Formats: sequence, C-alpha cells, structure tokens
Amino acid sequence: MKSTGAWAWFQKVVMNWTSISARPLAATPNFVFAGGADALGFSVLISLDRDNSQSLQEQIYTRIREQIMAGVLRPGSPVPSSRILAAQLKVSRNSVIFGYERLINEGYLVARPMVGTFIADILPDQAVGATPNDSTEDLSEISESRGAHVFSGRQHGILNNSSIPIDFWTQRTDPRAFPLKTWRRLVMQSLASAGHNLTEYGDPCGLMALRTEIAEHVGSTRGIQVRPEQVVILAGAQLALNLVLRLLASQGDEIVVENPCNQGAAYLFESHHMRLRPITIDRSGIDANAVAATDARLVYLTPSHQFPMGATLSLEKRRTILRWAQRTGAYVIEDDYDSEFRYDGAPLPAMKALGPDHVIYLGTFSKSLGAGLRTGFAIFPEHLVDAAATAKALLDNGQVWLEQAALARFMQNGGFMRHLRRSQQHYFSRRNALISRMRERFGDVDLLGTEAGTHIAWRLPAAFVPAHNIKAIARTKNIGIYTVQSGGGHEYDGSQFEQNWLLLGYASLSEDQIRAGIDRLEEALKTNEITHGSAQLSRSPLAPS
Amino acid sequence: MKSTGAWAWFQKVVMNWTSISARPLAATPNFVFAGGADALGFSVLISLDRDNSQSLQEQIYTRIREQIMAGVLRPGSPVPSSRILAAQLKVSRNSVIFGYERLINEGYLVARPMVGTFIADILPDQAVGATPNDSTEDLSEISESRGAHVFSGRQHGILNNSSIPIDFWTQRTDPRAFPLKTWRRLVMQSLASAGHNLTEYGDPCGLMALRTEIAEHVGSTRGIQVRPEQVVILAGAQLALNLVLRLLASQGDEIVVENPCNQGAAYLFESHHMRLRPITIDRSGIDANAVAATDARLVYLTPSHQFPMGATLSLEKRRTILRWAQRTGAYVIEDDYDSEFRYDGAPLPAMKALGPDHVIYLGTFSKSLGAGLRTGFAIFPEHLVDAAATAKALLDNGQVWLEQAALARFMQNGGFMRHLRRSQQHYFSRRNALISRMRERFGDVDLLGTEAGTHIAWRLPAAFVPAHNIKAIARTKNIGIYTVQSGGGHEYDGSQFEQNWLLLGYASLSEDQIRAGIDRLEEALKTNEITHGSAQLSRSPLAPS
Repeated sequence: MKSTGAWAWFQKVVMNWTSISARPLAATPNFVFAGGADALGFSVLISLDRDNSQSLQEQIYTRIREQIMAGVLRPGSPVPSSRILAAQLKVSRNSVIFGYERLINEGYLVARPMVGTFIADILPDQAVGATPNDSTEDLSEISESRGAHVFSGRQHGILNNSSIPIDFWTQRTDPRAFPLKTWRRLVMQSLASAGHNLTEYGDPCGLMALRTEIAEHVGSTRGIQVRPEQVVILAGAQLALNLVLRLLASQGDEIVVENPCNQGAAYLFESHHMRLRPITIDRSGIDANAVAATDARLVYLTPSHQFPMGATLSLEKRRTILRWAQRTGAYVIEDDYDSEFRYDGAPLPAMKALGPDHVIYLGTFSKSLGAGLRTGFAIFPEHLVDAAATAKALLDNGQVWLEQAALARFMQNGGFMRHLRRSQQHYFSRRNALISRMRERFGDVDLLGTEAGTHIAWRLPAAFVPAHNIKAIARTKNIGIYTVQSGGGHEYDGSQFEQNWLLLGYASLSEDQIRAGIDRLEEALKTNEITHGSAQLSRSPLAPS
Repeated sequence: MKSTGAWAWFQKVVMNWTSISARPLAATPNFVFAGGADALGFSVLISLDRDNSQSLQEQIYTRIREQIMAGVLRPGSPVPSSRILAAQLKVSRNSVIFGYERLINEGYLVARPMVGTFIADILPDQAVGATPNDSTEDLSEISESRGAHVFSGRQHGILNNSSIPIDFWTQRTDPRAFPLKTWRRLVMQSLASAGHNLTEYGDPCGLMALRTEIAEHVGSTRGIQVRPEQVVILAGAQLALNLVLRLLASQGDEIVVENPCNQGAAYLFESHHMRLRPITIDRSGIDANAVAATDARLVYLTPSHQFPMGATLSLEKRRTILRWAQRTGAYVIEDDYDSEFRYDGAPLPAMKALGPDHVIYLGTFSKSLGAGLRTGFAIFPEHLVDAAATAKALLDNGQVWLEQAALARFMQNGGFMRHLRRSQQHYFSRRNALISRMRERFGDVDLLGTEAGTHIAWRLPAAFVPAHNIKAIARTKNIGIYTVQSGGGHEYDGSQFEQNWLLLGYASLSEDQIRAGIDRLEEALKTNEITHGSAQLSRSPLAPS
C-alpha cells in the first residue's frame, strides 16, 4: 500500500491501518489534527491508495463515510474546506469536491452556505426507515426510555437558499409570473369585506367558497366529480400527506412508493415507521403489476409527472392499480402536483376520476400560483369525508383566511384560469428552449418528463462520469443542475437513477437564461474530465443509452 | 312500573322491557316508529317511569344514551324534533330539550343548524381513548385489516356557527378590535416588497424576521430567553401540538392532562392512542404532587389561565412540576394561550422561563390579534431544535408568507404592543362589567379565572339544576353560555365540573351587551325551575358552595 506523502506519519502510529478505526477519538489523541482555521475540531483519518482501482474521489468518499458510520467523526462537527483537505491529501481539489458532493447528496454531510460543511446530525443509515424492512424494530425500546427523543427522520430538500446565477432548481416557478397587481386587488377586496373572518376560527376544512371553486375546477380540468365537502384545504401537499396518514395509516403498515420518489413523501412515511415498498419506475411510470402483487394498504403516486423523473403513468397502468385497490381495499394517494402544465398529448384522466372511492387526490397552488401562498387541498372519497373532517380539526384549526378568500375570488372571476393559461404558455416556451438548446449542444439527448410539468430528467450518456460529478462541475461555472437526491428525490435500493440522470427545472428561468445555462454547461463539461475513459465530450450526437 | 300513555303499547309487545333492547332493529320491526316528517327513519324505544326518582329528562337522557351504545340507534340517523318527541312522550318540551342538550354536550348527539339533530357518527364511548386506560388495545387489529379505516377521534369544539344574539362564547375575541386599517397597510407594504417570497418555498420553521420578533417579545413579556432558531412558526397551537407529538410521543405513552382540559389537546392525544392521565385541577391549577407521582413522559398544561376553568397555576406548583421534569426527563408542554391578558396581580413567569430545557412553549396570535390569521408558534429547548426543524419540514413546508411578513412588521414598529395594550384595556373593562353585573343580579357569585384571559368560570350554587339545564334555559332567551363540554373543554372520570360550572367568554361583547345578557339570564332563570327543590332564584346573595 502506498499512501500519499502528507499522510505517511499515520502509518508510523498505526500499522496496517487501511480503512477505518472504530476506536473513539478520545482514546487516540495522536490522530487528531486541525486542518486549518475553518476545520477547528475536525479530525479525520484518511489513507489514500493511489494504486487502488477506486478513484481518489471514491476513496475520499468511502473513507469519510466509513468513519462517520463508525462514530469516529461525530454528527454536527465541521469538516475541513475542500481547499485545505486537497492540500493536505495532495490531491486535486475536484477530487475532494466530488467526494464531498456525494456525501452531501447522500445525506452524510450538510453544507451550510457561508458557514461550512458539517457531518449531518441525522445520518442516512441511522435514520429509522432508511432500511425500510427493519424500520419498526427499535421503536418500543426508544419509547420506553422516558425523556428519550423519539422522533427520527430526514430533512427533505424543498428549500434552496443558494444564489446560483443560473439555477435549474426543480421546485421553483417564475416569481415574475406571479399576478401581483391582481393579487393585491383581491387581497384588498377580501380585507374590505373581512367582517369577523380575521378574528374568528373558520371551518378547519377550509373556506366553503374556495372548496366550491376547487370542486368545479377539478371537475372541468381533471374530470373529477366531487362535492365541495369532499375538498379539504390545507397548507400544501406535505400537510395533506400527514392528514392522509392520520386517517389511513398505522405504524408498520406497508406503503408502496415510486422509486425514485419524492423525498418529502418518502421521508414522512419513514418517520412514521411505515414499511416502505419502493417499486422502480420506467418511462410509463411505476410497474403496475408489481404494485398489484403487494399486500400494501396504501400507494403514493405522482401520475401526471412522476417526481423526480417526470414519467406520465400510462392509462393501462392506472387501471391496473385501481383494479387492485378495488379488489384489496387499498387506497391510492394521487399527488397531482404538476397536472396544470401539459404540453404534448391529451392529459390522462386523474386516477381520482377513474376510481373515486379508492383515491385520495392531492392538489396544490404552489406550482400554478405560488409556493409562498402555502395553499393546497386534498379530495377524499365520500365515505371518508366525516373522518377526514375530524382528523383535520385535530391536525390544525384551519388555513389562513385571507389567502383562501382572495383565491376563491380569483377562481370565481375566471382570473385564475387566465393566469394558468399564461403560465402554461410561458413554461411551454421555456421547455422548448431548453430541449432545443440541449439538442444543439449535446446532440440527441435522452430526456424524460418533457410532455408535462416544470422540469425534465436527462439520462447521461453511458460513458459519462456519475451525475453528481457533472453537477459539481456545473456548479463551478455557476450553473445549478441536480441529481435525483439533490433535486428533492430519493432512490432506494441502488443508485442507477442517482448516478445516471440529472434534473433540470426550467419554469423560473427566461429563455435567454436557459440557453446561456446550457451553453456554459457544455463549456464546463468540455474542459473537464467527464467520461470514464479519456474521450472528451464531442459535439457529435451521443446516442441515448 | 307505570309507563306514560303513549308508550303503553310497547309493553304489550315486550314484557318487562325497562331499559334497552340490544336486539338490532331489523329483527324487531314492530318497535319502529316514525316520529314525524323530520324524524324519518328514526326509531327509538323510550319507556318513562313517572314514579322513578330520576327526573323525566334524566330518563330520556339515559334511555337514548343506552340505546345508542347498544347500537339500536345507529350513528348518523336523525332523532325527532323536541316538539314531536315531547308530544309523543306526553312530557314538557323542556324535558326533551334538556335531555337532548346533555346528549349533545356529551357527544352522543350532534345538532346541525337548520337540518336537525342526529346520532353522532363517532360516539364518545367508542372513541378510542375515551377510556384512556384501554385505548391502545384494538389498534393492531384495526391496522391488520387491509383497507380498514384506522383513524378514530372526536371532533373538538373550536367552531361556533350559531348566531345567538348575545353569545358568551369562550373562543372569540372582538372583531371590531382588529386593527384593520393598520393591517391593510402592513399587508400592502409586505406585498410591495414581496420579491420571490410569494412563489418560493420558505424555511419550514418560519420567516426569520418573525421568529426574531417573537423571541424578543417572549423575552420582554414572559421572561423567556431564546434564540430565534428555537422559535418555530405554525398555523396555531393545534398544529404545534401535532409537531410536539411527532417529536416526543409514541403510541401508548402516558401523558398527563389537566382535568377538565382543552378538547383540542385531549382528543388529539386520544387519537394518537396515548394513555391519558387526567389530574383534577383546583383553584391554583393542577395537583402538582399528583403529576410528580406519575411515570408520564409528557404533561400538557395551560398555566396562565387554565382551559377551561381559568385557574392560574401557582408558582410553587410550577416549580414542583419542573423539578419532577428535570428529575425524570419528562417534558412540559406549556400552552400559554391567554397569557397576554392579565388583569389582577403580577404575571407569573412562564414555566419555559423557569425550566428552559424541559418545557416546550406554545404561543398564539389567535387571542392577541385574530384567529383568522392562523399564526402561532412553538419554542423548543436548544437540544431539540434540529429535530424539531426536521419534523416540522415533514409536517408542512411552512406557513403562508404574507401574514408572517405583515406580523413581523407590526411587531418591529411597536404597533403590536400598542394594539395589545388597547385590547387589554378593552377586555379588562368587559371583565369588570361582567363581574359587577353578575354580583348585582346573582349576589356573591363564585367565579374562577377572573384575573386573566378572556373568559371566566362560574360555579353554580349547590341547589341549582345541572349546568347544561341552565345553558338550555339561557338559550331559549337567546343567551349563549356554556358548560365545560360545550365550551370546548372535556372532563374525564366524572362530571363535577360539567354539572356545576358555566363558562362565560366576554372578550367579543360590548359592556352593554354583557349587562343585557346577564339581565336576560337572570330573568330566564327566575321564570324557570332551576333549583332541585321548589325554591326559585332569589335576589339574596347565594353563598358560594
């Protein structure tokens, strides 16, 4: 074994030390080093082997991960900057950045902008439910120790505080598209006739005027025939999922999720100690026959535009899953988050329209209007309406009145549909600009999710280095593109999507920004080593793999 | 046994039938009667015994309750109007009204304004957790049956849709006191500088500007020293309780609640299959030694103004409970809902100020500003901050931006404190008007909760009929006064508070309305039989019992 120079002294201390030391640091003070002012208190034992078939960045990733899991590196402690660690290891800074990026993507490290990078407080392998099959085992033990801290869960990535100049972030719509002038007028009109609504508790299920408008809207746009009483207003789909779980789930219940899936949903299910059953998607969505072969009570789906991969669930698969639900009494949670934006082909009917008694439908105004309004809704089958109302009241005493009132007015006077059509046109043009430019720069790119929604998924050519490396290279050129994990998705049982696909959201960028972003991405890739072999990115079309 | 005439034919059918028939109606079609057009499908078997020591209204209550519990009367089915049932039973309409009132108060019947009265869908004795000690037993069975509907819970009474002309409702502040003009300006200013805040997801824990203001506010008004990061903004205390349970509770955990207690909290704990340990309060709050004798992990308290009875938890008791929490690692959930309004004596320090590491503090702007804003907050101990942030993000993706921004401005410029002082002055005058008038009309009344908050509790003289009868009499004169249960509270293990106390909220009524309300209440009581004996209400002072 050859070790890099800076680390040779380690070998004098510990013979044959190659990977991790499980001994606590307190017992081995000689191992401690301060990597510089920004790494105070950080202690790491890294031994790199340049003859190893593993790349240096992979070794960095592996060693740090092992030591985190062994408890040598403590949750919450800082890691050295990439500059300092690269200097000490005598490796390129990119190797460290790529290693760190992957650890961040997988949840071992947490980057805090302007502060530094830290060992995550809750580690992915420790998080109960990270390995779904034994997720319920420890619970009794935890809850028996009084004062113990029962909750364990992972932070999901809906928030993006970075200020990347051209950011293809997956969860953002266009702030300039918000109908601010109209909204101001609606807010003023609502306040003028507020009466006791600002001081009184309202129906926990929401303002009836808004529930009525939503019932009509989903009737005309999604084919869903419901009474307003079936519609419950909530502060977004995440809270709606909590309500559905209160209503229908017990600890240990099996729930089918798409793989890869939406972090917010998956991590919630994990934190409730449910048994997750991830079923891999293909270009027409989840494997419906595999769903129908399970004993699950619940299945969580994003049929209009699968999150994060963008697939549309085929009509045949919708029917297969609904027949199974009907036969077994299972429920489908249909998260129709991106259904407003459909560009190619006729929209498929909502699953809720096809199987009203077996589907809980979740909708949101976060994409169609703005996430800052925190307004979404759930639609329950008739037989669950009373229980849902009771459970909702125990969850919260209702939604802010003003936004509900303004939105009901907006929908009543047709303004919302006009706004929606305008947004559809904008996002359609942006999608087209993105696809065209990608084809111009990268040839015959393999894309998924183009026919709907506000982001696409790009399958990298087989020769490329893993997606998180491409992401890191783009980041050095001030371009934000995302892997499944960093884009708000999560892949169970493997990393084929995490390694081979990138996500690009386009709704918040102008066409010029989109084109400039793709141009800069191409430049960055050309000047970096991005294929496994020595081949540089060529302008010739890359065949889809 | 003598039965009233209308029911004699029953005896021909069933010999010795005195109380309930557990046989399903389908098997005993002869028993079915239609009580009139408004009672279609209602079937009831009531046998009244005029020699019985039980009053007629108590017999009506008992028989209907028994038959509901036996499943003879089905959940969701209508009951006849009081007029029709009184005619058929040949009893006074008041006897039926009182019987129904009590069944409604206890959750067996549900009154739907303009529609009628119905057997409740979820019955109190069936609701899992109604008898807390065996609340967790059925769960595994339920969750094992696929497609079964797991949730069971009771609807809590925060909503009051009735339009009683003078309504001493417990959960209402004054709509006229809302600073509408100022709020409109703050909303406009916030919208003008909204930027991306309307379209972007914010921090799930809330707007930092508001968290900072709240940290300062609780520092100066409640002696609580915290960093803004410890403050989490939520849509009110109910949602905050859900977050606390996610963080600290497991199914089957013991939780101490005040008895009587806040329905919203108690029913939530029940629905989570926790073991409720109700500990009876006295005039200085919960029995702290009894709390300290439990093995509970959590205790839910309303120390500033106990809900529903109004007691202030003494400093000595606060210290006893905190010492216990410190010793055992238990947590106190301090719901400080009415702390803004203190009229007599110095405010006691918040428990959070006395034991920062063992208390989760819940605050709300529902009382100080308006329930329609749905803005409250939780303050976590430092060591729970990270877990709380993760759990909060999995619960919802944050609070509506606009109200947070406007409220932060309001607090920043001192407007909120000025508004609070004005409201305090208003409510102080109203409280004084209420107490004076009650003393003028009813003599030396025994009141609890006068020194703080927005409602008081009145202990009825011992000779009076039960509180729900007084409530029903008041209702006939268009006066809304409330028992513990109908006022949003719940009593476990008995009915001493439910029978002997009435709740009167005064914050939403003018002084004139308050005086008129008490005058009309006195008149109504004088003309009705309201004592157990024959004594009518006299104007002479009634000694507190």
